[in-house]
Amino acid sequence: MTTQLPLNDLFLRACKRENVERTPVWFMRQAGRYLPEYRAVRAKVDFLTLCKTPDLAAEVTIQPVDIIGVDAAIIFSDILVVPEAMGMELIVEEGKGGPRFPSPIRSRADIDKLPVPDPNSKLRFVMDALRTTRKNLNDKVPLIGFSGSPWTLAAYMVEGRGSKNFRFIKELIFSSPKDAHALLDKLARAVAAYLSAQIESGAQAVQIFDTWGGILGQEEFEEFSLRYIKQVLSLLKSKGAPVIIFCKDCGHSLEKIADAGAEVVGLDWTIDIGKAREMIGSYVALQGNLDPTMLYATPERIEQGVQSILKKFGKGNGHVFNLGHGILPDTPVENVRAFVNAVKKFSVQYH
Amino acid sequence: MTTQLPLNDLFLRACKRENVERTPVWFMRQAGRYLPEYRAVRAKVDFLTLCKTPDLAAEVTIQPVDIIGVDAAIIFSDILVVPEAMGMELIVEEGKGGPRFPSPIRSRADIDKLPVPDPNSKLRFVMDALRTTRKNLNDKVPLIGFSGSPWTLAAYMVEGRGSKNFRFIKELIFSSPKDAHALLDKLARAVAAYLSAQIESGAQAVQIFDTWGGILGQEEFEEFSLRYIKQVLSLLKSKGAPVIIFCKDCGHSLEKIADAGAEVVGLDWTIDIGKAREMIGSYVALQGNLDPTMLYATPERIEQGVQSILKKFGKGNGHVFNLGHGILPDTPVENVRAFVNAVKKFSVQYH
Repeated sequence: MTTQLPLNDLFLRACKRENVERTPVWFMRQAGRYLPEYRAVRAKVDFLTLCKTPDLAAEVTIQPVDIIGVDAAIIFSDILVVPEAMGMELIVEEGKGGPRFPSPIRSRADIDKLPVPDPNSKLRFVMDALRTTRKNLNDKVPLIGFSGSPWTLAAYMVEGRGSKNFRFIKELIFSSPKDAHALLDKLARAVAAYLSAQIESGAQAVQIFDTWGGILGQEEFEEFSLRYIKQVLSLLKSKGAPVIIFCKDCGHSLEKIADAGAEVVGLDWTIDIGKAREMIGSYVALQGNLDPTMLYATPERIEQGVQSILKKFGKGNGHVFNLGHGILPDTPVENVRAFVNAVKKFSVQYH
Repeated sequence: MTTQLPLNDLFLRACKRENVERTPVWFMRQAGRYLPEYRAVRAKVDFLTLCKTPDLAAEVTIQPVDIIGVDAAIIFSDILVVPEAMGMELIVEEGKGGPRFPSPIRSRADIDKLPVPDPNSKLRFVMDALRTTRKNLNDKVPLIGFSGSPWTLAAYMVEGRGSKNFRFIKELIFSSPKDAHALLDKLARAVAAYLSAQIESGAQAVQIFDTWGGILGQEEFEEFSLRYIKQVLSLLKSKGAPVIIFCKDCGHSLEKIADAGAEVVGLDWTIDIGKAREMIGSYVALQGNLDPTMLYATPERIEQGVQSILKKFGKGNGHVFNLGHGILPDTPVENVRAFVNAVKKFSVQYH
């Protein structure tokens, strides 16, 4: 399934730092609520049902390719389906403070009873969605799979939901580091199996989201987050698909992240992409990094923002344009188009 | 009032990078809810009444000096009393999502009608609290005043409350930068006058909290946050009191922050204090930076955390020990004591 190159393979070439005619662009959460066509599908089914209905997941995955003109599709799903597949009850009620696990992990016994799920059974709906999407995309653009990082999944599983201070997961790593490592090792194996299965099901690249890496000090980031991303990467090495790692708010450890073994490093908007290229651009591609809130500004301001990032990166290969974090749900669609079109228009001169 | 040196002036000496026998320690939000004695006072009055009743504010300001043994007191107040003094209605209902402004700033007209308040009139309760505290402290330890940074105050005033994505203030800087600068200039003048008055009323050092500097990209941080901190600093220069600037999540701009002109730079826990000292420690003192959530761990683990930071900073002067952010309200008091005692015990060997 992965042998056929897409007609537009700019994204895959940029991941490998090969020549491209212009900078490819896609963006995190591009299949989402800012699109009226997405909201129309969601009006019929709830969020988790959408994730678990391959035909519908494929439909919303492809929407931004057709409507906005992005250079890659990313499978519509949620990082929390992995803990759910490990037996944790997951509740998603939109507008009620985000997804949550009503029975969070709080003891070694809770950790020990978690299975490493077979992704082709418990997460088969993701694999089916990938296969359907590949078929329906018909090699128009590449398809990206994804997972949360072990650390980010652990943070959600232990806190039970998103958190401001992350008291419980911090207590776990500081007071019971052995238990934390047991959980993270299990999650690393689960994530590696999950991403492997995604690649086998048609994902032509995969991204690891370390949304909560930035809540850790540098030593703890290396010990509890990056170490397990590396474990996942080593298990994925033979798969041949480019891997993107995106650790939000972790600019302090950029060189260590780049050394982890992924082909592409995602940058949030607080990192200067020019400086990042100087530091690590000779051995990894960079993905990013427009501030998502800039899409609330005028199309002219958005064009300036895009040009500024292209200029900072400079001439040459190895740049995948993206936002510095997921698009916000109330972003005006015309501004999203202005963003994507600006990348396509202004990046030509840098190649 | 500021001429008499406190009996324990370790903190002031460390701010000036002078010789000290051990590293001084205080911590952000040290007069606060983790202390049963604070909660006893708060049981009688609401939060803003406590801020505005000088005798009570002085009482809770001094509590951690007597109960925990910190080397400096910081006046009990809230950064949002400044926008309130500029005419914005402020509502603080604890446990209801934090303080908020029901009528946030959303237009140029809203900005233009804001006065630069006379701190000795509209914020007289803070000045009275400082005077009372100095009197009651009786030069036991130095007293610190504080303010939010212009940027952080602007973010609260425009959003109306704390925010996840800061959509409105970002829209302001990206779409109407002139209006943003008009607001920030006004706030810089208000903050400078406020901090000057605090020093005249007995504050022996002042800290500027840039809690939301980290939501900006590096260029925007310089243009909309650091520039106005510098404006405040230049207006405070003649006052002779050390200034601490604490920009949370701004490790990317550490050298620029250190060049702004303050005597002390506060570090959050994601910054390696050893690397920070190498970069900027020859011309500013450093304050920080234990992860506040480490105070949920065991006393033994807390001691290790303290020792690790002392070791990273190394031998010599110019370190004020602190947490990397405010203490969390449900931190066990015995762990706070373990933290402060560990700094006192283990820092001697580095001096």
